[in-house]
Amino acid sequence: MGIRDTLESFAEGRISAEEAERALRLDYLERVGDSFAFDGARSMRKGVPEVVYARTKTPAQVAAVADAAKGFLLFSKASPEHFSAVSAARPEAVYDERSKVISIGRFPDPDRGTIGVLAAGTSDIPVAEEARLMAASMGVGAMTYYDVGVAGVHRLAGPLSELDGADVDAIVVAAGMEGTLPTLVSSLTQIPVVGLPVSSGYGIGGGGAAALLSMLQTCSPGLTVVNVDNGIGAGAAAAAIALRRGRR
Amino acid sequence: MGIRDTLESFAEGRISAEEAERALRLDYLERVGDSFAFDGARSMRKGVPEVVYARTKTPAQVAAVADAAKGFLLFSKASPEHFSAVSAARPEAVYDERSKVISIGRFPDPDRGTIGVLAAGTSDIPVAEEARLMAASMGVGAMTYYDVGVAGVHRLAGPLSELDGADVDAIVVAAGMEGTLPTLVSSLTQIPVVGLPVSSGYGIGGGGAAALLSMLQTCSPGLTVVNVDNGIGAGAAAAAIALRRGRR
Amino acid sequence: MGIRDTLESFAEGRISAEEAERALRLDYLERVGDSFAFDGARSMRKGVPEVVYARTKTPAQVAAVADAAKGFLLFSKASPEHFSAVSAARPEAVYDERSKVISIGRFPDPDRGTIGVLAAGTSDIPVAEEARLMAASMGVGAMTYYDVGVAGVHRLAGPLSELDGADVDAIVVAAGMEGTLPTLVSSLTQIPVVGLPVSSGYGIGGGGAAALLSMLQTCSPGLTVVNVDNGIGAGAAAAAIALRRGRR
Amino acid sequence: MGIRDTLESFAEGRISAEEAERALRLDYLERVGDSFAFDGARSMRKGVPEVVYARTKTPAQVAAVADAAKGFLLFSKASPEHFSAVSAARPEAVYDERSKVISIGRFPDPDRGTIGVLAAGTSDIPVAEEARLMAASMGVGAMTYYDVGVAGVHRLAGPLSELDGADVDAIVVAAGMEGTLPTLVSSLTQIPVVGLPVSSGYGIGGGGAAALLSMLQTCSPGLTVVNVDNGIGAGAAAAAIALRRGRR
Amino acid sequence: MGIRDTLESFAEGRISAEEAERALRLDYLERVGDSFAFDGARSMRKGVPEVVYARTKTPAQVAAVADAAKGFLLFSKASPEHFSAVSAARPEAVYDERSKVISIGRFPDPDRGTIGVLAAGTSDIPVAEEARLMAASMGVGAMTYYDVGVAGVHRLAGPLSELDGADVDAIVVAAGMEGTLPTLVSSLTQIPVVGLPVSSGYGIGGGGAAALLSMLQTCSPGLTVVNVDNGIGAGAAAAAIALRRGRR
Amino acid sequence: MGIRDTLESFAEGRISAEEAERALRLDYLERVGDSFAFDGARSMRKGVPEVVYARTKTPAQVAAVADAAKGFLLFSKASPEHFSAVSAARPEAVYDERSKVISIGRFPDPDRGTIGVLAAGTSDIPVAEEARLMAASMGVGAMTYYDVGVAGVHRLAGPLSELDGADVDAIVVAAGMEGTLPTLVSSLTQIPVVGLPVSSGYGIGGGGAAALLSMLQTCSPGLTVVNVDNGIGAGAAAAAIALRRGRR
Amino acid sequence: MGIRDTLESFAEGRISAEEAERALRLDYLERVGDSFAFDGARSMRKGVPEVVYARTKTPAQVAAVADAAKGFLLFSKASPEHFSAVSAARPEAVYDERSKVISIGRFPDPDRGTIGVLAAGTSDIPVAEEARLMAASMGVGAMTYYDVGVAGVHRLAGPLSELDGADVDAIVVAAGMEGTLPTLVSSLTQIPVVGLPVSSGYGIGGGGAAALLSMLQTCSPGLTVVNVDNGIGAGAAAAAIALRRGRR
Amino acid sequence: MGIRDTLESFAEGRISAEEAERALRLDYLERVGDSFAFDGARSMRKGVPEVVYARTKTPAQVAAVADAAKGFLLFSKASPEHFSAVSAARPEAVYDERSKVISIGRFPDPDRGTIGVLAAGTSDIPVAEEARLMAASMGVGAMTYYDVGVAGVHRLAGPLSELDGADVDAIVVAAGMEGTLPTLVSSLTQIPVVGLPVSSGYGIGGGGAAALLSMLQTCSPGLTVVNVDNGIGAGAAAAAIALRRGRR
Repeated sequence: MGIRDTLESFAEGRISAEEAERALRLDYLERVGDSFAFDGARSMRKGVPEVVYARTKTPAQVAAVADAAKGFLLFSKASPEHFSAVSAARPEAVYDERSKVISIGRFPDPDRGTIGVLAAGTSDIPVAEEARLMAASMGVGAMTYYDVGVAGVHRLAGPLSELDGADVDAIVVAAGMEGTLPTLVSSLTQIPVVGLPVSSGYGIGGGGAAALLSMLQTCSPGLTVVNVDNGIGAGAAAAAIALRRGRR
Repeated sequence: MGIRDTLESFAEGRISAEEAERALRLDYLERVGDSFAFDGARSMRKGVPEVVYARTKTPAQVAAVADAAKGFLLFSKASPEHFSAVSAARPEAVYDERSKVISIGRFPDPDRGTIGVLAAGTSDIPVAEEARLMAASMGVGAMTYYDVGVAGVHRLAGPLSELDGADVDAIVVAAGMEGTLPTLVSSLTQIPVVGLPVSSGYGIGGGGAAALLSMLQTCSPGLTVVNVDNGIGAGAAAAAIALRRGRR
Repeated sequence: MGIRDTLESFAEGRISAEEAERALRLDYLERVGDSFAFDGARSMRKGVPEVVYARTKTPAQVAAVADAAKGFLLFSKASPEHFSAVSAARPEAVYDERSKVISIGRFPDPDRGTIGVLAAGTSDIPVAEEARLMAASMGVGAMTYYDVGVAGVHRLAGPLSELDGADVDAIVVAAGMEGTLPTLVSSLTQIPVVGLPVSSGYGIGGGGAAALLSMLQTCSPGLTVVNVDNGIGAGAAAAAIALRRGRR
Repeated sequence: MGIRDTLESFAEGRISAEEAERALRLDYLERVGDSFAFDGARSMRKGVPEVVYARTKTPAQVAAVADAAKGFLLFSKASPEHFSAVSAARPEAVYDERSKVISIGRFPDPDRGTIGVLAAGTSDIPVAEEARLMAASMGVGAMTYYDVGVAGVHRLAGPLSELDGADVDAIVVAAGMEGTLPTLVSSLTQIPVVGLPVSSGYGIGGGGAAALLSMLQTCSPGLTVVNVDNGIGAGAAAAAIALRRGRR
Repeated sequence: MGIRDTLESFAEGRISAEEAERALRLDYLERVGDSFAFDGARSMRKGVPEVVYARTKTPAQVAAVADAAKGFLLFSKASPEHFSAVSAARPEAVYDERSKVISIGRFPDPDRGTIGVLAAGTSDIPVAEEARLMAASMGVGAMTYYDVGVAGVHRLAGPLSELDGADVDAIVVAAGMEGTLPTLVSSLTQIPVVGLPVSSGYGIGGGGAAALLSMLQTCSPGLTVVNVDNGIGAGAAAAAIALRRGRR
Repeated sequence: MGIRDTLESFAEGRISAEEAERALRLDYLERVGDSFAFDGARSMRKGVPEVVYARTKTPAQVAAVADAAKGFLLFSKASPEHFSAVSAARPEAVYDERSKVISIGRFPDPDRGTIGVLAAGTSDIPVAEEARLMAASMGVGAMTYYDVGVAGVHRLAGPLSELDGADVDAIVVAAGMEGTLPTLVSSLTQIPVVGLPVSSGYGIGGGGAAALLSMLQTCSPGLTVVNVDNGIGAGAAAAAIALRRGRR
Repeated sequence: MGIRDTLESFAEGRISAEEAERALRLDYLERVGDSFAFDGARSMRKGVPEVVYARTKTPAQVAAVADAAKGFLLFSKASPEHFSAVSAARPEAVYDERSKVISIGRFPDPDRGTIGVLAAGTSDIPVAEEARLMAASMGVGAMTYYDVGVAGVHRLAGPLSELDGADVDAIVVAAGMEGTLPTLVSSLTQIPVVGLPVSSGYGIGGGGAAALLSMLQTCSPGLTVVNVDNGIGAGAAAAAIALRRGRR
Repeated sequence: MGIRDTLESFAEGRISAEEAERALRLDYLERVGDSFAFDGARSMRKGVPEVVYARTKTPAQVAAVADAAKGFLLFSKASPEHFSAVSAARPEAVYDERSKVISIGRFPDPDRGTIGVLAAGTSDIPVAEEARLMAASMGVGAMTYYDVGVAGVHRLAGPLSELDGADVDAIVVAAGMEGTLPTLVSSLTQIPVVGLPVSSGYGIGGGGAAALLSMLQTCSPGLTVVNVDNGIGAGAAAAAIALRRGRR
């Protein structure tokens, strides 16, 4: 019974207010359900592959997800134990040790755009690599420059010049401790910059907190951020900018 | 004396180690100073106009900045008292009451791109407008949809459809309280989304904290954020994406 | 063009992948918009009247909302200035000074259920009254007992006995400072209890933080909470339980 | 000596003020002790079985509690080691691995009501199951829908429609990360909703903090919450609503 | 109907399980109520006068409390406006401007003991005085030494020597900023010390937070603390020690 | 050279300002050093034995301290590994497993006073026992009542009556989770109460934070607190009150 | 009676253990008091003038301090109202509006050293000036460079070159928002750098928190910090380094 | 093409605005790169050796850094596993177990200055030693005094007298728990003091937080701090003061 039918039945006294109210709510829910019925590929709607956060799951749970999955799939923050379980179920799975990402399925060709990925120090590389792989899973390539931290500001000039020359679509900048690098990069280029705080650092403000806060307080308008260690999010954001630009 | 000269002098014993060290450091600093000597227009280097945060300055201080400024200039979070002082110094200044932005100089034509600006509720509009004006100052127009909050999820469908149809470059989504809207928008579109937390809400997690944290914890990879109430930053980020795309 | 049509056109090569993708997304959004088209009365769908948080709005903004509103409407945390502006626009508006709630429209008869509202001390009464009025706006009456705080635990026995005898549907317990009262009430009754922390108290843990945390850490399973000072939420939650029970 | 006797003795000078004061206090305490003497079954007074939090206890301590217990008993957050120790003492003990709950004794028939239990993602299932078992221990059944998170909002329509059709008494909604789901569910139904934040998520706002804060800041009045991972509390609250309703 | 009667009626089938359960709960509550019926003077039971926190109350509310009060009464953190309203209702009220305490009624003779009250600096005096007045209201006198802060450690020797010589019962030590003084005093004397953090100080750890934390982290076992600015609590605690000692 | 000599020398020009300044400072320091030269037994000055916090030290470090110690000595939060190392060096050492306290030397006779020690639940016993042992090391005995938590308020009456009858000097009340018990005890007795928060509880406010904050926010003036899990501090404070009282 | 006398009396039985203990403690305290008896000028002992924090004091309190003071004296964070009251008592007082510092007495000649003071932006100048004045009060001059923030890194080269050329003793670097500047300066110079976080910035990490945390997390070893807005502390620290160096 | 050439080309219309803009930016970056081209020894520019934080790196990563390093190098917070890997690659590496510092290369002669290093307690020694070694790596010697904590204030006089007599350049004071010692030392000497908070202590304010906050809130102007456990930073800061002084 549609909305109009329901209201008419109510007006004519054939159904009570209670019955009408319930009918309308059910109808409302059904129509929503119907409209959402086309689930199709999430990757079509969003252009983003499914990513499963492995750290809080057991190897068995992760393997079960791998077993049931149909399309391209990533597991982030995966341990070697996770990989053992996954590769038993899906022998074609690949483990990238540095970024701790397991992938199942072939990465698309990296022809939908190019991003830059910078890391301030050695400790920031795993998360930076996670961002690179996420972009790769969306068909976006990357130019990477690691170990360009503030202690050696001058190391920044070369990479920025190359990224500008290559006309990349966006730059992910990973930095822990005091998290200065993204602000500096953002103040030196017109390319959109995504700040990626990293959980290095200890003491008060450690674990990425100071890095995140200083990026949020940036004096360089235009810098945006994702959460601490969220390489997946930073890579997806930069790649989304690339994809959007590529559609022009 | 250049670096090489200095080192040779030192090797030949004509200067002491102390003298060489100081000379090298001075030389280093001078060269940096020289290379930075071309200050030119910051707006050329970054494409972003100067923005002065007025709230922590007295009307007199703000007026002094306005008086000395040469190019296009914005003041954010400005009070009517700020505007009185500024317009005494610069009669051509314009005050946008809703966003509390004072502008001096003509906005560029909005032909360098288009962004969407969404606000979850009435309280989020001032900050959303700040974002819109910032983008406008960079030559980027905006389609705005306010009052599309989660309590009425269904109000979201129309705006998203229009933004997608108009092929906008990026979307700024302003939301306070629990800050759900940016995640929802990001999960429904391929357009890059910048989350803008707003300091509405009270109690624990109020003042924008819950909104910011829930955006950082988003389950929609690709959403990036700026700090609470930082409409300038969100607008600059979205406009930077538009400018980059327009360069293709 | 429906989903199926779109996919067929794509399969037959009449439209490109790009065109199909955009069509599907637009179709998706339109269908959502359509299914949500029946907005009807939010109060029908949720049984909850519109509540506007006044504190962060100017009197003029609040008056504009009042002017445009059609049905029953509440403003919470409203100042006398808010009321002046509202009553200019809507002379029938009523201001409850204790709870700082402005109401426009007639409250429903309180015949859909009954809740208890307890307050630990004098400072907790305004928020407790806000809860009572919210329930009243949903047709649910209240028995109120104020000043039954822990310092006089014994004052609790009488009210609990009366509430139990009256077979109320739920109890809201407002408490600031160390927030013990809700745990105590919850441990002494089978009636569902909603803890309402209040922003009294000062020093570390003041502003309601200690009250909220101690309610979250309660050793009495079954106690639920709302945010600090959120009388609207507590009243709505208790009334929702009453309405649900009344439907049986 | 009763209160009145004491006061008379004092008035007549037979006892000193010091003696009267001490006598009154002792009398006061004794009477409280007496009135509380009927301890009976806590489950009668509260309708809630004893629940022992195992995580901070050694297997030996937990086994000792099990050994001494008389009625129905639950252990929450129990490890396999806890279960080994308990089942040595009480062979009839049962371990639910998913929820990490050990139960001793027969669950009552689930005929005192029905609740819904929703979980946003796989990581939220253990805590959701804890809530389900707690309700079951109070004689309340559950309809469960897991993996209905925001990333797939549309997956929500079916479950909500079924829960509404089944006229359940309350809904527990478990969600980690940004914790949006409870707000969404609460905005779409009149059934009382208890938000259950889950300690998934990492970085700033991780460990359930963002989820809890966003539920506290909810824009849907009527949503109540329990602490992070407190499935016992959420299940007890929802079941208490069911029991209350069933008493009508 | 008593507990035993109820159970017998149930065993004999004269009342249903439902009826028995409700009867038992009511009986339980009534007996508690009865046992608590002797409310008498709270000051007899606890030896502590009623203290009303004025800051979060309006002058009218405070005056109403004063008007209704029967015995000795204190208002803490009271403004001159509070005092005006109170003295209109109770002309005998007295306002101590330094401590912002209003008292109604005669203080008892200070013959039940003696405490020391130390303050590190000028800013700590108001809260120290609040502690002194609270003790006075319990019949306990005070020796006060203000401005003995760490910057002049040597100023401490004289006061400590005098307090020791006078055999005081306890010492309250008020300190803001880094809050070192209570630890120092506690390490130099056998007299029980109550640390009273004060909300002086600014920046991170300001508002008394650093003072409280450093007192909690004290390396001098035996130091106890109350909350920031809680002179009432510190005075009551020290006086309670004095009263207890005096009873010997 | 004394202070006066120095100043005279300076006035007469025999030493420069620089020399005088240094001399005065050295003199100042020497005199302090001299005045402090009598170190004597710390236990004489403070009545408190040396307590070494073992948790952050290696077994070897702890054993070295034990080896070098002369008088009575306690190690707190000691593991079995610590004990092995200590007993190798000092075979007379005794390990109390429940409280994780190692003692070397004979405890004094418990004739200097008596305190009460209450614990809300099983998880609070280890810290409560630590407090008891600390008091014992100062010659103060204890009456202990464990498992008297709020969920069974009525269990409190008996213990309080006994403690009052025995005229104990002070009461330590250990409680985790929401930390209500100390406030309740303090509101029911005139005996000085020291609140001892315990790091049970999980989720937000877990680890003892909610317990500590609710004790700091107590509505029962006179309750003082020590830091989370600081049984040593609570025991020392209560025993100090007993010793002071015993000196009368 | 000295320590030795006391011990002998005790050994010979002429005084009891109790008497000896008290005598020793009194003696101990008296000797400390004696050794500290030379209070003299604190500015001699520390080289630092008395600084009174005015913000939390009333104008009357501040004037009373000024009236009683003998030597050179500073008031920090003073309002114009403070100055009115002070200059009534001490007409020679001088008010520096920018830094909100009141001084009484003549500043010493600035011949004891030179420091650099840098400020990142306009909002940082008041606190930077406070640091400069504090150093001046210790006889240390300053070279100031304001508005050299990160957004214009290149503006840094000139000032650093000049400071190096002038061989200054230390540099204070004031910065709010993300607080990058001190790290940058410290990484470019061998001169000791004191970071001075400033409470500009808003949103999360505002009020100087992000600035402080990023300075604490600095990747440039050697940078030290003071608290937010503590220009007095930063100036005193830098001047102390200068004085120390000048003594060589 | 230089800046001037570019601008002329643009003015004469030979290149477009787009081309000019890109050219200027590239030129800008190249010039920066060029000016920074002299990287030379960082230790020359800063006088500070390279320090690698080992804790968040695997032994293999640390060994790779050691293998590639050319000059003097330190690893901080290194485990024995780190040392095994490093010494395999570089047999000349030395491991200091107490401070957990690995060094490669010969320490310079300690003839560039002298600092004092004080530690409040045994737990503070490892971090104090880290500071000492860092200073040693910069050619600065140290006088160390450990176990001079507040509980025995008098133990402070001797060390301070010696440090003053030796005319040391700066003092590092390490302290955990309540962190009082640096304030005390700073108030008693004119020598510059660097506070080094240590992560001892537990409960609220533990992990070094209370120590850091109390140092930031110090009432002794002139005390500066580094982050918790940052012995490297404290040692570098104190040594930098010494080096600066030595240059006079």
